[in-house]
Amino acid sequence: MDSLDALIKSLSRLPGLGPRSARRVALHLLKKKDLLMVPLGKQIMRAAEEIKTCSLCGNLSTHEPCPICTDPRRDRTKICVVQEVDDLWAMERTKAYRGLYHVTNGTLSALDGVRPEDLRLPQLIERIIQHNVTEIIIGLSATIDGQATGYYISDQLRDMPHCHVTRLAQGIPVGSELDYLDDGTLTLAFQSRQNV
Amino acid sequence: MDSLDALIKSLSRLPGLGPRSARRVALHLLKKKDLLMVPLGKQIMRAAEEIKTCSLCGNLSTHEPCPICTDPRRDRTKICVVQEVDDLWAMERTKAYRGLYHVTNGTLSALDGVRPEDLRLPQLIERIIQHNVTEIIIGLSATIDGQATGYYISDQLRDMPHCHVTRLAQGIPVGSELDYLDDGTLTLAFQSRQNV
Repeated sequence: MDSLDALIKSLSRLPGLGPRSARRVALHLLKKKDLLMVPLGKQIMRAAEEIKTCSLCGNLSTHEPCPICTDPRRDRTKICVVQEVDDLWAMERTKAYRGLYHVTNGTLSALDGVRPEDLRLPQLIERIIQHNVTEIIIGLSATIDGQATGYYISDQLRDMPHCHVTRLAQGIPVGSELDYLDDGTLTLAFQSRQNV
Repeated sequence: MDSLDALIKSLSRLPGLGPRSARRVALHLLKKKDLLMVPLGKQIMRAAEEIKTCSLCGNLSTHEPCPICTDPRRDRTKICVVQEVDDLWAMERTKAYRGLYHVTNGTLSALDGVRPEDLRLPQLIERIIQHNVTEIIIGLSATIDGQATGYYISDQLRDMPHCHVTRLAQGIPVGSELDYLDDGTLTLAFQSRQNV
């Protein structure tokens, strides 16, 4: 295979790119060889080498442990359990949470072959015991798999009476119109209604 | 800037990717370091080095001149003038045309600063004279700029009586419904109606 075809084929395997947009990206790169293509190639190689998975929380970072795990200003008594590093980043952007994280890398799923031992729970339990963590916040997706995984994790933590398990509130998203919401969300919002 | 931010920033400059999808792509790459990230980085560097612009037609290829220009089975009496390498590739996919190409790399445009001397017309004229080309097919975009450029090129070739200038037919696209077509296309399709 010639180097152009090989490049297009690899690009088309990226999320959000098909064969057509991969061709477009390849052509755009070749038109801007010095300004974009060579720097991008170097950055990919550098990032592949430098970026590691944090052994404590599972975040991706050039440091090991990651800056969140080593930041002394963060609240070490809370750990938020998230599914993917994307979710961790999304939470960090809100600046609403100042505790630590635990990335499960997926949810329990018979279809995708994700088993309980893939969720890195022994590490989580060790951190809870070692650092007297008092709250685990389940921040998994509000899907069937995400909820099942959340129940499984809270069940595993039952033997730790000093550690409270909570989960993110479910309800009406900010800015949404009621008649566009699905029945499940509306039902849930009724059931979990709050005092004003 | 750390290597992760640098990578995301470069990725977000690719066509069709914004900051959000660039993050997604970066994360996907980091999850598949050995399978996707390192090979892609290597392919980008290799393609940047190996792929050259063909000095005859302007096509991108690992060979100089490109395989189309050197293919002895192609009709050397016809040259199709296209705007971008994408267009050349699109035409090659149809397998409907077996002549040669000339890539102008853009259309005349005061706004984008593309001047007549940027269209590589001297090279085109030299090829016409040297190889007794009898037909130049204008395959530029059906936009104002594309049409102006087409007229300019055919005007430049006026002094070559043996070389006929044609352009791609304009009209109703295959499979389209009439009531969705714009007025310009419909008017043109009426004016250029063909005998059945």
